[in-house]
Amino acid sequence: MKLIEEKVKYVADGTIVTPKGFQAAGVHAGLRYTKKDLGVIVCDVPASCAAVYTQNVFQAAPLQVTKQSIAVEQKLQAVIVNSAYANACTGEQGLKDAYEMRKLCAEAFGLPEHLVAVASTGVIGECLPMENIRASIPKLKPTAQLDGAVDFQTAILTTDLVMKKTCYETVIDGQVVTVAGAAKGSGMIHPNMATMLAFITTDANVPSDVLQDALRSITNVSFNQITVDGETSTNDMVIVMASGLAGNEPLSPQHPDWANFYEALRQTCEHLAKQIARDGEGATKLIEARVKGARTDEEAKWAAKHIVGSNLVKTAVYGADANWGRIIGAIGHSGAFINPNCVDVWIGSIQMLKQSQPVPFSEEEAKAALMEDVVVITVDLHVGNGEGIAWGCDLTYDYIKINASYRT
Amino acid sequence: MKLIEEKVKYVADGTIVTPKGFQAAGVHAGLRYTKKDLGVIVCDVPASCAAVYTQNVFQAAPLQVTKQSIAVEQKLQAVIVNSAYANACTGEQGLKDAYEMRKLCAEAFGLPEHLVAVASTGVIGECLPMENIRASIPKLKPTAQLDGAVDFQTAILTTDLVMKKTCYETVIDGQVVTVAGAAKGSGMIHPNMATMLAFITTDANVPSDVLQDALRSITNVSFNQITVDGETSTNDMVIVMASGLAGNEPLSPQHPDWANFYEALRQTCEHLAKQIARDGEGATKLIEARVKGARTDEEAKWAAKHIVGSNLVKTAVYGADANWGRIIGAIGHSGAFINPNCVDVWIGSIQMLKQSQPVPFSEEEAKAALMEDVVVITVDLHVGNGEGIAWGCDLTYDYIKINASYRT
Repeated sequence: MKLIEEKVKYVADGTIVTPKGFQAAGVHAGLRYTKKDLGVIVCDVPASCAAVYTQNVFQAAPLQVTKQSIAVEQKLQAVIVNSAYANACTGEQGLKDAYEMRKLCAEAFGLPEHLVAVASTGVIGECLPMENIRASIPKLKPTAQLDGAVDFQTAILTTDLVMKKTCYETVIDGQVVTVAGAAKGSGMIHPNMATMLAFITTDANVPSDVLQDALRSITNVSFNQITVDGETSTNDMVIVMASGLAGNEPLSPQHPDWANFYEALRQTCEHLAKQIARDGEGATKLIEARVKGARTDEEAKWAAKHIVGSNLVKTAVYGADANWGRIIGAIGHSGAFINPNCVDVWIGSIQMLKQSQPVPFSEEEAKAALMEDVVVITVDLHVGNGEGIAWGCDLTYDYIKINASYRT
Repeated sequence: MKLIEEKVKYVADGTIVTPKGFQAAGVHAGLRYTKKDLGVIVCDVPASCAAVYTQNVFQAAPLQVTKQSIAVEQKLQAVIVNSAYANACTGEQGLKDAYEMRKLCAEAFGLPEHLVAVASTGVIGECLPMENIRASIPKLKPTAQLDGAVDFQTAILTTDLVMKKTCYETVIDGQVVTVAGAAKGSGMIHPNMATMLAFITTDANVPSDVLQDALRSITNVSFNQITVDGETSTNDMVIVMASGLAGNEPLSPQHPDWANFYEALRQTCEHLAKQIARDGEGATKLIEARVKGARTDEEAKWAAKHIVGSNLVKTAVYGADANWGRIIGAIGHSGAFINPNCVDVWIGSIQMLKQSQPVPFSEEEAKAALMEDVVVITVDLHVGNGEGIAWGCDLTYDYIKINASYRT
C-alpha cells in the first residue's frame, strides 16, 4: 500500500473544478437568510457517473429523481443542489418540485433532463419555495475558476462550520488524472450516507460500471465509517462524475494503473469523510478509532464504529478524560467477536489496557493526548488479522445547543 | 389486559422489605465521599431466584460470582451490592475480591456462600478498596423497617439523582402477594441490562425455573426497552428473589392466578424501568415512544427503541422543538419494515404526519406537549398489528457535563 500511496499526490489548492471539464457556481436563492444556498456543477461533456444513496427507508424526492436520471444511460452532465430544505416527506408536491428543479437546470444549461441530478439538504417536511428556485437557477453562472468551486462549496452547507473539499492527482497512462470533491455534513452523520452530500469530479476516463463498483467499495471504508450522532438521513448521497478528458485509456481493475486511480478516489473519499466527522455539530476534535486483531475486517469496522459512536466515549474525549472503560463498553456490544481476556487499548501512544488488565499511565500525558485536535484510539483484539478504522467527533454542549432548536 | 391490570394494585409506600421475609440495610463504607455505598438484602429463608445479565461481552467479576452462586440450587438468601467501583476489567484480583465479598457476606449472615449474590456498579478498571468492604460488611444491620430499604436504595446509586423503587400487590389463592423492587440506573442505559441494577423481592411461592422464564420475557418489554445513551455496561443485572412466604400454591403458567402474578411482576419491572429512563443522566423529561401497526411486535419494539435512542429526537424534545422529521429519520433506519407512504406520527395528542404527509398543527400546542414531564410520541406504521413501547429521556447540557469528567 505504501507504494501506491506515494503515487497519489494531495493537491492543496485543488477543488471540484480542477479536474478537466468541470465548472461550478453557487448563488443566494433566499432559502436561507444570507448564505449561498443553491449550487450547480456542470461538465463540458456527458460524464460517466456513479452514486450511492442513504439506506434510510424514507428517501427524499431528489434522490428518486436522481436515480431515474442515472438509470437512463449512467451519465450525468450537471448536478443541482439546494440547502435549507430537504424536500423529504413532501409527498406528490415534493416529487413534482424535484422534477421541476431538474427541468429548470436542464433548460438553463441546454441539457437533456436525464443528464441532470438533483440533491437537497435541510429541514424535512416543508416544501421547497419554488419561486426562489425558479428565479435563481438562471442566475447560476458556472466557471472553472476557484470562485465557482468556493461558491458551490458554500451553497451546500447547512449547520456546517467549514467548507469541505479535497483534491488528489495521480498518473495513468502517462497522463495526469485528478480527482476532487466537495461535501457537506454535520449532524445526523452515521453509517450509510447520513445527512451528507458529497460530489466528486474526476477527469479520468472510467466507465460507469467500473466507477460504481469502486465507489461502493470505497464508501464502505470512508463515508460509511464516520458517525456524528448515529442517525441516518433521508437525503444523503455521494455522486461521482468522470469527464474522461484526462485522455487515459478506459480504466478497469485490469488496467496496469488501476490502483493509482482507486487510491486517488479512496483518499478523496476518506479525506472528505474525515472533514465531515471533524465538523460534526458542536465538535471540537476528530476521533479516529483503529481496531486491529479482529476476526475479520468487517468486525474490526463494527468495533471501530461503535467506539466513535458511543456518547460516553465522545463526552469523555470532550472532557479529555482517559476513561478507557467506556471504550471497552463500546466494543463489548459491537457484535465483533472478542476474547474478554486479551484486549489492548491505547489512547494516542499511551497504553491503558494490556491483555484486558489496566496499565498504570500518567494522567497528565493521557490528558495531553486527549487535548489533541485528532484523538487516536487504538484497540488490538488479538483474535485475528482483521483491521478497520472509523471516524467521529466529540459530543459537546454545542451539539445540544444546535439540535435543541434546529427548526426555530 | 384491562381486567388483569385491575387485579394488581400499586402500593405507594411499599419497598423491597414489604414482601414477607425480606430485610435490607445500607451503610457508608467510604467508597464514596459521604453517600451510603454498600447495601444488602437478606431473606429469612432461601428464596427461589431468577436473574438476567448484561449482554456486553465484558462481564464484570461480580456477575461471574453471582452466576456461580445461582447455578448451585437456583436459590439466593442475600445479595450484597456496592456502588462507586464496578469491579470490571480488574482481572484475577477483581475475581478474588468478588469471591471475598461473597464470603464476608455469607459469614456475616450465617449463610452458605452459594446463597449469596454480589453486584457492583461504578468506575471500570479500578480494584475495590477491600479494606473498606471488609470493615463495613459487619456493620450492615438488615431490618424489615422502611429505613433498611431506604438505606439500601441509596447505597446502590451512582450518578442517579433519585432513588428508584416500586411495589405492587395482587391476590393469589386468596393470599395477598407482594412484588417490590429497588433499582439504580443513570448513564449507559440501553438494551440488555446496561449499567443498571434492579433487585426485586416477592413473597410469592414460585419455583426458580418458572420465575426465570417470566423474568426473561418481562425484561424484553421493560428493562430492555429503555435507553439513556445507547451504551451497555459490563455490570448490569436484574435479580428476583421469591421467599414463598405469602403461602400460595406454587405458581406456574397453569395456575389460575398466574396472570395476576405475571402482571404484578411486569408492572414492577416497567415502573422501575421508567424511573431509570426518567432519571437518565442530565434528563429533564421521560420520553415514551409507542409504535403500533408494525409487521410484528418485535419490529415495533425496534422502531420505538430507535426513536427514544436518537440523539436528534432527544435534543429536539429537550428544546421542545416539534421536529417530527427526526422521528421519521429514526424509524427509517430501525430495521422495522416500513411503507414510506403511510406513516402517521403524533407528539402527545397532536398529529404531525398522516399517511407520511405533514399535517398543519399549532406550534404552540406542540411546544406545550413537549414541555410535559412525560412526552409521548406515537407512530402508526399501518403495515400490521405489531405493537411496542420504549422509554428514554432527553439529551441535555447536563448529560455532557456529567460525562465529560465522570472519573475526575
